[in-house]
Amino acid sequence: MTNHLVLQTDFGLSDGAVSAMYGVAITVDPGLRIFDLTHDIPQYNIWEGSYRLYQTISYWPEGTVFVSVVDPGVGSDRRSIVVKTETNQYIVTPDNGTLTHIQKKLGIKEARIIDENINRLPSSGESYTFHGRDVYVYTGARLAAGVISYEEVGPSVPVDSLVELQITEATAHKDNVLGTIDILDIRFGNLWTNIERETFKQLNVEYGDHFEVTIENDTRQIYKNIMTYGRSFADSHLGEPLLFINSLDKIGVAINQGSFAKAYHIETGTNWKIYIRKVPKIIYN
Amino acid sequence: MTNHLVLQTDFGLSDGAVSAMYGVAITVDPGLRIFDLTHDIPQYNIWEGSYRLYQTISYWPEGTVFVSVVDPGVGSDRRSIVVKTETNQYIVTPDNGTLTHIQKKLGIKEARIIDENINRLPSSGESYTFHGRDVYVYTGARLAAGVISYEEVGPSVPVDSLVELQITEATAHKDNVLGTIDILDIRFGNLWTNIERETFKQLNVEYGDHFEVTIENDTRQIYKNIMTYGRSFADSHLGEPLLFINSLDKIGVAINQGSFAKAYHIETGTNWKIYIRKVPKIIYN
Amino acid sequence: MTNHLVLQTDFGLSDGAVSAMYGVAITVDPGLRIFDLTHDIPQYNIWEGSYRLYQTISYWPEGTVFVSVVDPGVGSDRRSIVVKTETNQYIVTPDNGTLTHIQKKLGIKEARIIDENINRLPSSGESYTFHGRDVYVYTGARLAAGVISYEEVGPSVPVDSLVELQITEATAHKDNVLGTIDILDIRFGNLWTNIERETFKQLNVEYGDHFEVTIENDTRQIYKNIMTYGRSFADSHLGEPLLFINSLDKIGVAINQGSFAKAYHIETGTNWKIYIRKVPKIIYN
Repeated sequence: MTNHLVLQTDFGLSDGAVSAMYGVAITVDPGLRIFDLTHDIPQYNIWEGSYRLYQTISYWPEGTVFVSVVDPGVGSDRRSIVVKTETNQYIVTPDNGTLTHIQKKLGIKEARIIDENINRLPSSGESYTFHGRDVYVYTGARLAAGVISYEEVGPSVPVDSLVELQITEATAHKDNVLGTIDILDIRFGNLWTNIERETFKQLNVEYGDHFEVTIENDTRQIYKNIMTYGRSFADSHLGEPLLFINSLDKIGVAINQGSFAKAYHIETGTNWKIYIRKVPKIIYN
Repeated sequence: MTNHLVLQTDFGLSDGAVSAMYGVAITVDPGLRIFDLTHDIPQYNIWEGSYRLYQTISYWPEGTVFVSVVDPGVGSDRRSIVVKTETNQYIVTPDNGTLTHIQKKLGIKEARIIDENINRLPSSGESYTFHGRDVYVYTGARLAAGVISYEEVGPSVPVDSLVELQITEATAHKDNVLGTIDILDIRFGNLWTNIERETFKQLNVEYGDHFEVTIENDTRQIYKNIMTYGRSFADSHLGEPLLFINSLDKIGVAINQGSFAKAYHIETGTNWKIYIRKVPKIIYN
Repeated sequence: MTNHLVLQTDFGLSDGAVSAMYGVAITVDPGLRIFDLTHDIPQYNIWEGSYRLYQTISYWPEGTVFVSVVDPGVGSDRRSIVVKTETNQYIVTPDNGTLTHIQKKLGIKEARIIDENINRLPSSGESYTFHGRDVYVYTGARLAAGVISYEEVGPSVPVDSLVELQITEATAHKDNVLGTIDILDIRFGNLWTNIERETFKQLNVEYGDHFEVTIENDTRQIYKNIMTYGRSFADSHLGEPLLFINSLDKIGVAINQGSFAKAYHIETGTNWKIYIRKVPKIIYN
């Protein structure tokens, strides 16, 4: 049995690009099983590509081969690599920071540079703008199908030579925690922070407790208000904000059936800071 | 051979949520065949989730397992259920009205509550916000793959205990029919009414006949004009409105190569009423 | 082993239409492997449907069956056909110009009209508006699964009887080439012209050479400026325009990490003309 192939790109699904990638993989092995992570990574947004891999790969079996193509440097001398993770999954990608979260949070065992003399779609023409089709999915499909072994990808390189984006960790203090807004739960507009459940719990929290939440973009304050900590959205009234543990075991900020991100024009990145401070229970007289 | 698994959510495809669900299902059974109904149900719109199930499940084989997650009450005490339909298909969903059209139009034989002591993804953490991944697709995949039988889902509950949304039926009168705008054919902006072909035919209609169509939102009149009844869009001139039998054997309202919904700002629901009255053939002198 | 089935429509993925098509195919053969080209062809845009087929089918194996439904004339007397290409792939489609690029660029061996007495979904009701489900995918699935042979599709018709859209070819002159903007690389906003690499090379070009690029819509000049010819986007500065060879071996126009189409409001079609003139190397003093 072959392994599964899972594709992620910033190409969208509105033209033929992703279908050409599927066709290349199916031509490598007509029985190959191919799935999508997402093709809706915002163009050139390596950070988000890195995060979506981190968000999902634990739910896929060992041996799964991921191909992730967010590649603003296509055609430059950036390296093309395949890594083997601590969980024995493979990721085929340009070496541009796409592996940041995987390396920091899940671990990478080994990295190899793709040898394009062997691992490039035959007769792929004089185009240097679609390595997703000509190099990455071709290599990923051959690896998943067992046409090449991991060693045949190309020469090994040190794991610590991989390009990494900057990640900041949340910190806990006496009566507050400080973190950043890492990413959005896009459809629902919930904020996903980098504050782990364990970090948050150092404040001795219980469901129903109240917190003052402050959000800043660089030095500008964007939001400051009190909200409760609930098990899920249904623990707040319709339209009310709340803190909750998201599906990655980190602190999220939501409005029950509304979009927190849209309501306050909040975006993501290390310059979007969030402070959560425990406040005494409020008694309304 | 295992049964097929078909997923519907309001999660969108822009982040990793649906891919995590696929991964859970593939981990249950690496050979499982998984398909999408749509992931573009408007957020929290249970009615539309119910309608899309009704629109499509007749075209899938017996034994197919559908997982539908439009779940504004995630984390509350709303029940999680699996039903077996009269057509021997299964639907895994929160019990919040998602089964309204299936129950009314196609019939449900049996309902069972998901026993989360057995049917919950192991080590799914302390998050209560992603039952789509941790409960619904996990249960659906195990049922489709034959890891559990339908009886092993959990205890049986009466079918008439299921939550139902209100549905109104179209009515035929002497020279007109009265119905509601149930839903849109989204891409093309056609209105899909709840008026069955058989109800409409009580007006003794033939292709080419003329009808006065009136659309009201609550008490406000939105549209009133004459149009013809055609076999298909090509029976009207470009840009002309027409009545037609849609792909669910109900009356639709369209503009040939235009969007009726956008042209007149028409939305859907039981407060969007449509009257269709037969008028004499118009003779232009 | 059955052949693969690949679907293209202008239906979008937001309602149940495409899923109903999948269900019909799976009911024909539960083991059939089905993929998407795209379902995001702009409504009624036959040209773009034709182009996306041309862009992708070379990457799929022999025997693959494509179903393409961009069908403004559904329900009219337009013919429904299945062609066999020079590359031994099949395309099921309304005969409305969808095969224009395939016929001109890749070649069609044989064409047959679908005999709807045999090849129509049983009990598909009195609706004449969803031939994608009732005729095209049903026929495509049966062909891919080997339930019917190509000959059983229906009677043969001359290949030169197929409807064709007008295509214009690029022309090379002494110091310039003249072409049209055929289509966009949608997500990135790059222009894809009809100028083949070989035509362009008649200007004796090398990477780094400078060109004056003029774009006109009918008689109105939209853009005129100097840009360089690069191997890929990374050969220009961030935000700089460039000429490049795209993934179909034709000339493209891009802005490195920007959208050329959005920047200058450029659309596509034979009335969008592009002139590329070689200019002497510019020396900045």
